[in-house]
Amino acid sequence: MVDVSAKEPTRRRAVAEAVVHVGPQVAEAIRDDAVAKGPVFHVARLAGIQAAKQAGQLIPLCHPLPLEHAAVDLALEGEEVRIRAEATVTGKTGVEMEALTAAAVAALTVVDMCKALSKAIEIRCVRLVEKSGGRSGHWRRQEEQA
Amino acid sequence: MVDVSAKEPTRRRAVAEAVVHVGPQVAEAIRDDAVAKGPVFHVARLAGIQAAKQAGQLIPLCHPLPLEHAAVDLALEGEEVRIRAEATVTGKTGVEMEALTAAAVAALTVVDMCKALSKAIEIRCVRLVEKSGGRSGHWRRQEEQA
Amino acid sequence: MVDVSAKEPTRRRAVAEAVVHVGPQVAEAIRDDAVAKGPVFHVARLAGIQAAKQAGQLIPLCHPLPLEHAAVDLALEGEEVRIRAEATVTGKTGVEMEALTAAAVAALTVVDMCKALSKAIEIRCVRLVEKSGGRSGHWRRQEEQA
Amino acid sequence: MVDVSAKEPTRRRAVAEAVVHVGPQVAEAIRDDAVAKGPVFHVARLAGIQAAKQAGQLIPLCHPLPLEHAAVDLALEGEEVRIRAEATVTGKTGVEMEALTAAAVAALTVVDMCKALSKAIEIRCVRLVEKSGGRSGHWRRQEEQA
Amino acid sequence: MVDVSAKEPTRRRAVAEAVVHVGPQVAEAIRDDAVAKGPVFHVARLAGIQAAKQAGQLIPLCHPLPLEHAAVDLALEGEEVRIRAEATVTGKTGVEMEALTAAAVAALTVVDMCKALSKAIEIRCVRLVEKSGGRSGHWRRQEEQA
Amino acid sequence: MVDVSAKEPTRRRAVAEAVVHVGPQVAEAIRDDAVAKGPVFHVARLAGIQAAKQAGQLIPLCHPLPLEHAAVDLALEGEEVRIRAEATVTGKTGVEMEALTAAAVAALTVVDMCKALSKAIEIRCVRLVEKSGGRSGHWRRQEEQA
Repeated sequence: MVDVSAKEPTRRRAVAEAVVHVGPQVAEAIRDDAVAKGPVFHVARLAGIQAAKQAGQLIPLCHPLPLEHAAVDLALEGEEVRIRAEATVTGKTGVEMEALTAAAVAALTVVDMCKALSKAIEIRCVRLVEKSGGRSGHWRRQEEQA
Repeated sequence: MVDVSAKEPTRRRAVAEAVVHVGPQVAEAIRDDAVAKGPVFHVARLAGIQAAKQAGQLIPLCHPLPLEHAAVDLALEGEEVRIRAEATVTGKTGVEMEALTAAAVAALTVVDMCKALSKAIEIRCVRLVEKSGGRSGHWRRQEEQA
Repeated sequence: MVDVSAKEPTRRRAVAEAVVHVGPQVAEAIRDDAVAKGPVFHVARLAGIQAAKQAGQLIPLCHPLPLEHAAVDLALEGEEVRIRAEATVTGKTGVEMEALTAAAVAALTVVDMCKALSKAIEIRCVRLVEKSGGRSGHWRRQEEQA
Repeated sequence: MVDVSAKEPTRRRAVAEAVVHVGPQVAEAIRDDAVAKGPVFHVARLAGIQAAKQAGQLIPLCHPLPLEHAAVDLALEGEEVRIRAEATVTGKTGVEMEALTAAAVAALTVVDMCKALSKAIEIRCVRLVEKSGGRSGHWRRQEEQA
Repeated sequence: MVDVSAKEPTRRRAVAEAVVHVGPQVAEAIRDDAVAKGPVFHVARLAGIQAAKQAGQLIPLCHPLPLEHAAVDLALEGEEVRIRAEATVTGKTGVEMEALTAAAVAALTVVDMCKALSKAIEIRCVRLVEKSGGRSGHWRRQEEQA
Repeated sequence: MVDVSAKEPTRRRAVAEAVVHVGPQVAEAIRDDAVAKGPVFHVARLAGIQAAKQAGQLIPLCHPLPLEHAAVDLALEGEEVRIRAEATVTGKTGVEMEALTAAAVAALTVVDMCKALSKAIEIRCVRLVEKSGGRSGHWRRQEEQA
């Protein structure tokens, strides 16, 4: 674990996104709220938020952080579920892994909720899109969305 | 959580894969074992195995399972890290989520280990590739590799 | 921890209930789905299910069990939220604590979701209502509902 | 999770209580330290303290907090076990859920320790009794004790 | 993680011991039940039992096991606390790590409870003393006690 | 849990050591990187770091702390593996238990990785060697190394 004890705490925020390709049949079931296992977006959103709080346990060299905010949003776009996760802390190290873990676990949860309908579902992207606070300042991904 | 209490336990196995696009600079650092934060593949492999054991906690409607085997392998192919995760249990429900969670958390760990070198790193795929045991029998993804 | 290694595994099931008195204002907010923090019953339901899976960690002398089913239902009745939690396992020891923990944590989550609206909210009951499997056979609470 | 990153950290404290109705036989066994499973109050006290530290994991939209103090006391009054739990932190959000979770899990543990003696045991109350720190100042429950 | 899926489940049991050298002053405080932080043996015993249940999470390549029994006993002998931990499961792999983890965490807890009295406290031994079940049969440490 | 809410946060650091006696055969296997279960030191190092982050959960009356640094080093000296663990935090209470837990769990992991080669392996020492920060100032163990 990198030693961050000599750094100054600042307000740090990170945003990550994930894309789950679900195919036409699952997309329709989500749109109609007809997935037998339950309300996909509600479950995935909570799974993502709880995972953000556990990033420091899941990722071996990640610092444990008392998160001050975590949010996960999901939207259906065609045959894809798009996930946006955000995390904020006032601390000595960034929250990229918290946001990425939230996005990834929300995506895994979408797969879990829908896998009885289709095994072809796949997560096609999990990546950082924005980061602020700390020495490196504000950063935003330049390329067009995945 | 789906009620599986009336099902018969059988030997179940699942294989998942993940791809992390790291770019040329990070690929070289991994190849030269020159990533300052430590040995990327060793750390990611263990993170994946430990995550497999926690899938039942991370994924809200996933059953907790006493895994009998979990393995994670990583390989560098050009500018990508390819991850293969496998999980096995003798139980009443499959281990797809265990294999997928292992692959996803190993991929997140690759990002964590290398993110100081490049913010452009992204996870480009997490998906099931094979599954056996249970009522639905053996299944293998048909398409060519991601 | 009681030694259960010599017992035979049987199918065991337990049902618990909890009652949260929320008062008229919070009851209306729940009814109108107007609680700012989010969908109270969805969040409480998932919290309860996940807690059922962790009973073996939370309760010091409780055995860890690979649950085969957990379910939590919530209903608004007047100024009260009524919670019913159920757990099932095929194992050597009962799942009373799993059902009770699910009901209690779902109730705590109702409090958390609504506490900004009223500090007077209180959990008025958490108790076992039914239990089957194992040597002691089927048991059902006789008294009228709390 | 509510965004608390813009708030000022203050010293926050909360007190919760729980009541477990155990009936005459169990009360006597507790009084005589004759419960076969072990020292009920010792076990319940530790379970409550450890649960206070995990409130941020158990309650989905609860912030993780580095608790600075947690205490749980139990007393037998007639046929009831009365539990008082207290939590303190210097932080941006209150510790009501930490105190309530401690009280509830201590109460669940009393049930677990004594359930072989009586299935009629029930938790009759879990509620906040006092709260200080933060914008809303000091609050104390007015009604007479449960 | 070693693949144990093809093995037959058998009843497996392991016993481990630990020794904590506490010195004369702390030994007296323990004997007089005068350690300010609380009842040392009660707290250490529970910590050990709970740790046994978490061995599969703490030790990276250790299988998660639904323990059927865990017990920890502590005794003061002169200036030493002697700890004996036992674990039992019916499963495909042994419970040595569960017993050893219980002994080690109970020992760490003795240190934590008493460290305000003396920094010289040290754990002088944690080791397996007996093991049965599985292919390798019954084994008992031959040497005299540590 | 001791109430530390009135204390001032300072930078605190602790160092612990552990010694695992592995015997000649296992020492050779480690030296030749020929332990079938995997790279012993890599796995033990990560297990120790992750355990440092969980000390507040494992040790009942230990405060949860957002660690700012944790490091674990292992070295083979003759027939012994020597482990040195270090933890740092800016907080109101020390990190002795975090360093000790890291050393102990790294030692347990060495045992787990090598136990198929020899049941005689034993942990012979886990102890604090240095501590700084807080009211008691800097402390270093005087005796010669274990």
